[in-house]
Amino acid sequence: MPYLERDGDVFVLYLGNEGQTDNENRFHPDWIDAFHGLLDEVEASEGPAALVTVATGKFYSNGLDTDWLFANFDRNCWYLDRVHSLYTRLLTFPMATVAAVNGHAFGAGAMLATSHDFRVMRADRGFWCLPEVHLGMPFTVAMNALVTGRLANQVAVEAMTTGRRYSADDAIAAGIVDAKADADKVLATAIERAAGLAGNRKPNLPVIKKALHGRTLEGLAVETTPENLKFAP
Amino acid sequence: MPYLERDGDVFVLYLGNEGQTDNENRFHPDWIDAFHGLLDEVEASEGPAALVTVATGKFYSNGLDTDWLFANFDRNCWYLDRVHSLYTRLLTFPMATVAAVNGHAFGAGAMLATSHDFRVMRADRGFWCLPEVHLGMPFTVAMNALVTGRLANQVAVEAMTTGRRYSADDAIAAGIVDAKADADKVLATAIERAAGLAGNRKPNLPVIKKALHGRTLEGLAVETTPENLKFAP
Amino acid sequence: MPYLERDGDVFVLYLGNEGQTDNENRFHPDWIDAFHGLLDEVEASEGPAALVTVATGKFYSNGLDTDWLFANFDRNCWYLDRVHSLYTRLLTFPMATVAAVNGHAFGAGAMLATSHDFRVMRADRGFWCLPEVHLGMPFTVAMNALVTGRLANQVAVEAMTTGRRYSADDAIAAGIVDAKADADKVLATAIERAAGLAGNRKPNLPVIKKALHGRTLEGLAVETTPENLKFAP
Repeated sequence: MPYLERDGDVFVLYLGNEGQTDNENRFHPDWIDAFHGLLDEVEASEGPAALVTVATGKFYSNGLDTDWLFANFDRNCWYLDRVHSLYTRLLTFPMATVAAVNGHAFGAGAMLATSHDFRVMRADRGFWCLPEVHLGMPFTVAMNALVTGRLANQVAVEAMTTGRRYSADDAIAAGIVDAKADADKVLATAIERAAGLAGNRKPNLPVIKKALHGRTLEGLAVETTPENLKFAP
Repeated sequence: MPYLERDGDVFVLYLGNEGQTDNENRFHPDWIDAFHGLLDEVEASEGPAALVTVATGKFYSNGLDTDWLFANFDRNCWYLDRVHSLYTRLLTFPMATVAAVNGHAFGAGAMLATSHDFRVMRADRGFWCLPEVHLGMPFTVAMNALVTGRLANQVAVEAMTTGRRYSADDAIAAGIVDAKADADKVLATAIERAAGLAGNRKPNLPVIKKALHGRTLEGLAVETTPENLKFAP
Repeated sequence: MPYLERDGDVFVLYLGNEGQTDNENRFHPDWIDAFHGLLDEVEASEGPAALVTVATGKFYSNGLDTDWLFANFDRNCWYLDRVHSLYTRLLTFPMATVAAVNGHAFGAGAMLATSHDFRVMRADRGFWCLPEVHLGMPFTVAMNALVTGRLANQVAVEAMTTGRRYSADDAIAAGIVDAKADADKVLATAIERAAGLAGNRKPNLPVIKKALHGRTLEGLAVETTPENLKFAP
C-alpha cells in the first residue's frame, strides 16, 4: 500500500509497499482508497507544500489491477471511474505536483504520471508507454480526454496508436516528461523541483489549474458506461 | 488514376497514373471515387496490414482539381465535402497509415498528407504548403478543423496565415512531418515504418483513432454550405 | 499614450509615451481607447500593410493598470473585458501582426504579446511572465482561453502555475516567442518579418484568423462576472 513521508515542505507519496522493490503498484480498489486518504492528509496540512510521487524498484506503476478487474469484470465501469478519480484529483491538486518516474510507467500508470504538473524520469532505464493498442483495449472517454488534453496531437497519435515505449530521452523530445535524472537522483531532483514551488500553495492555484485543464476535466467527468466503453467499431 | 500495389503486409496506394511522373494528383471527383474504392479493397483484406500513400515524380498532390471546380462551381460545396471525405476516412482508417511525401504537397494535398498517422518527406526537394492565404481563399470549416486539430496553434498560425512553404527540415521542426529521407528512400522508409505497425490492425485501433481525433472529426463532419464557406468578412 | 509611426508598408504602434523610456505601458482605460483608435487608423489604410507593436526602454508592457483598478474596483469586470478587447482585436486583425518584445512582458502585457501572430524578443534582457499565481490572482475565463489556446498544454501548466520568468531563449524553447534579436535589432527584425507579410492583407485573412482561433475567441467573448472571476475555490 502507498505511504507518505515528508522532506521539508515536500510530501513524498510512495506508490508501493515500504521496503518492497518489485511491486508493480497497480491500482487495486483498496490502493485507490489509500491513495486518496494520503492526499487528504497532504491537503490537511497548512502552509507552503508540494507533492512528489515515486516508487522504489523497477516500476513506477503498471496501472490497472488486471487481476482484480478480470475477477470483478461486472464492476469494470465503476472500477475505471475510480481510476479516473486519481487523475482528476492530481490535475486539480491545490499545490504543485511532480512525478518522480523511477521506472516503468505503463497504461493507467503512465497516465498517473501525466496527471501531475511535472515529471522527472529515470535516465537509463524504464519506459513511459500506453500498451492498450497491443492489448486490444480502447481508452475510456476519460483517459482519452487526459492523454489528448495533455499531449500534442501527433504525440497522442504515436503514443495511443503504436504503443511506443518512450525512454526518458524519447519522452523529453515528445513533451511527455520534462526532465531526466540518474537513477539515484530521480527522487532528489523531483523533490528539489517541488520544493521550489511549495510557496505557490495559495487559494488561487487550484482555481488556475481547474480553468487551465477545463476541457480535459470535462472529459474526465464523463461516467464510464458499457455504451461508451467500446472495444470494437 | 490512383492504383494499388502490395509489399508484404503494406498496401502502397499510388496517387497518380502508373508510369507518369508529372502528374499533380489533384482530386477530380472520379479520382476521389477511385481512391475510396482502393481503400475499400485494402479494408477488405484480412490479417496484419498497413497503408502507405505515395506518388511518382515531382508532386505528392496539389490538392483541389481547380479546373473541374471552376467549371462546376455550382457544385463547389458538394465537391469540397467529397474532398473532406478523404481526410475523415484516413484519420479513422482501421490500420496504420503513412504518407510518403515524395514531392510537393500543397493545399488540400498537404492536408491529405496531414490526415495520415505519420509522414516521411523527401529531404532535398518539395514543400508542404497551404497557399490559400495567397489565393484569396478561406479554409472550409472541415479543413480548419483538420489543420488546427493536427498542428500546434502557432504552427497553424504560420501555415495558414503566411502560406509558408515548409521544406522537410522546416516541416520536421514544426511538427508537420515526422521524418525525412533521400528521394530514392522515401517510399522504402515509409513502407518500413508501416510494416512495423501492421500488427496493430485490431478492432480497437479505429476506436482509439476516432476518440483521439474526436474534436477534429466533429469539425470534418460539418457540411459545407454557401453560408459557412466565407471568403470575406 | 500609444502612438503610431509608419515604415513602408508596416505600421509601428508604440505602446508608450514618445521619448519616455521608463514607462511600464500599463492598460489604463484611456490607453485602451487610444490603442483601439490607432488600430482604427491602421485599418483605415488601403493596400498592403502589416502591424508591429513595440515600446521603448525596459518594458514592453506590465499589463493591468493596477493603480486604476484598485481605485475603481467596483468596475473590475468592465475593466477586464476592456483589456480582453485588445486580445480579440489583435487575434483577428486583418493584417499580419508582430510584437517586438523590447523588454519585460508581464501578466496582461505578456498576453498582449501572445495575441499577435508572431513575437520577436530581445535576446539579452527582459522576461515573458505570468505572475498571477504569485499575486494570488486567478485568470479570467477570457485570459485562460487565450493562454491555453495559444500555448501547448504543458507550457500553459508551467507558465500559469509556476509564474516562471522566460528569457528569450526559454520562450523560444517553449514556443512562446518565435525569434530573438539583439536589443538594437528587435524592432528592425519585427518590421522585416512584418513587411514580408504585408502582401497577405486580403479579405480572406481575417476569415482565416477567426476560424483558426475559433475556440479561443469563444472563450474571449465570455463576459467577466463576479461569479466567473474566482479567486479561490
